[in-house]
Amino acid sequence: MTIETISSNRSHGGAQGVYRHASRETKTAMTFSVYVPPHQGSAMLPVVWYLSGLTCTHANVTEKGEFRRTCAELGLILVAPDTSPRGEDVPGDPAGAYDFGLGAGFYVDATEAPFAHNYRMWSYVTEELPGLIAAQFPADPKRQSIFGHSMGGHGALTVALTYPDRYRAASAFSPIAAPSQVPWGIKALGGYLGDNKEIWRKHDAVALIEDGARFSDFLVDCGDADPFLAEQLRPELLQRACAKAEIPLTLRLQNGYDHSYYFVSTFMADHLRWHAARLKA
Amino acid sequence: MTIETISSNRSHGGAQGVYRHASRETKTAMTFSVYVPPHQGSAMLPVVWYLSGLTCTHANVTEKGEFRRTCAELGLILVAPDTSPRGEDVPGDPAGAYDFGLGAGFYVDATEAPFAHNYRMWSYVTEELPGLIAAQFPADPKRQSIFGHSMGGHGALTVALTYPDRYRAASAFSPIAAPSQVPWGIKALGGYLGDNKEIWRKHDAVALIEDGARFSDFLVDCGDADPFLAEQLRPELLQRACAKAEIPLTLRLQNGYDHSYYFVSTFMADHLRWHAARLKA
Repeated sequence: MTIETISSNRSHGGAQGVYRHASRETKTAMTFSVYVPPHQGSAMLPVVWYLSGLTCTHANVTEKGEFRRTCAELGLILVAPDTSPRGEDVPGDPAGAYDFGLGAGFYVDATEAPFAHNYRMWSYVTEELPGLIAAQFPADPKRQSIFGHSMGGHGALTVALTYPDRYRAASAFSPIAAPSQVPWGIKALGGYLGDNKEIWRKHDAVALIEDGARFSDFLVDCGDADPFLAEQLRPELLQRACAKAEIPLTLRLQNGYDHSYYFVSTFMADHLRWHAARLKA
Repeated sequence: MTIETISSNRSHGGAQGVYRHASRETKTAMTFSVYVPPHQGSAMLPVVWYLSGLTCTHANVTEKGEFRRTCAELGLILVAPDTSPRGEDVPGDPAGAYDFGLGAGFYVDATEAPFAHNYRMWSYVTEELPGLIAAQFPADPKRQSIFGHSMGGHGALTVALTYPDRYRAASAFSPIAAPSQVPWGIKALGGYLGDNKEIWRKHDAVALIEDGARFSDFLVDCGDADPFLAEQLRPELLQRACAKAEIPLTLRLQNGYDHSYYFVSTFMADHLRWHAARLKA
């Protein structure tokens, strides 16, 4: 289990690193970033996982997320994985679309050919990479939390609902809340998992809640000027499911904000404080 | 004097815009960004100018500078111009190097062929663009300040020293403090201004101070792990000139930091607070 350091830069008193390793799950080289805040030599720090959206790599949030100041203040490690396997040998969308294949792994373990061989992002972000982070960084596996943006918000909510004892907090920016019911999700879940919609339910936050999954509470921010809000994100379905299941949901519709990192970075500190309060409780 | 809006995104309660206009100085289309913080309808706001470094456009600081939260808090407009004219018809470095020509205008009005026609970045950032900003944004021309990074730190210091009554504050990250004495500057000033080094002195902060220019005070941050520190930046020459001229200089050598935006973004809030204190005095 070796990792290659691509870059390491001091930032906000800590270190922003970018790393690469050979993944057993995806059978490709995978790149990820880790911010380690300033800390005492032997300290073990809480870890916040950030899952990115369609078309993104680790780089989008690493460069534009504006998380380091608050992570430094709160003493949080932030890990940002890539969103899919990469490489010439990795199959992508047959038509080259942005919303399936490369950059669009949807945080599932694919079962359908030709994707099943490489597209194992669920196991990658919930098993393989956490093991590597625990082994190589001053990370406390007992204090983890997870959040993400858009497709990564979907990933964060489904991971948290599946492992409620492992993650102490979960939140999302503009999540694809009910992928089984929207175009992006129908294409991706069908393509990776096949036609049996019962199987999709394990990768749909609203369906997971309907089927009995629970989590302590969620924070979700969406922009009311987000062009994907009504067709692809549908936070009202999450709101309804949480209300019925009595999961406390803080859902904020932010006036004038869109789907971009200008939105994410604006509310990044709020989310990190939400996580820190629960990681340190 | 019309400008085209390329994008506008709500961020940190204000609006981050990117704009394009036909420049009379450069005879090209020029792109710049403006962040306008949340404000009362009729308010006129102080304006902070940020000049970027070699290879950069407006986009580097706009995406990676982490300035919006603090600008929103302090009520500051931030303007980020491009660093040179652009276009197929604009002459660049004959060998295609990164440190001259496109992306490397060095904030001078070139006198040498073939650069003199387009490379008029001094007049662009001190005359043309300020006029446009004053006309099109809620900007108070009586309250302006200037800062920048690397080549842009050079630009900010020389502009401030030339117009000490126009700018109420000036600071720099990793400035090229004495371009007449370092490889980047010798190449650029020679290429744009010719061999007469007396002319270069108007575009060299240390030489300007030696020749009698003054400014109220400066804040300068450099990283001690910056690979360009000793050969290209030479802050000790600025320190010596300021000491001799009795210009108060707060020069901070930041431990472990390099030349990147991971460094700039770390100390961005400090610089904006320095500016705000003087803009609001």
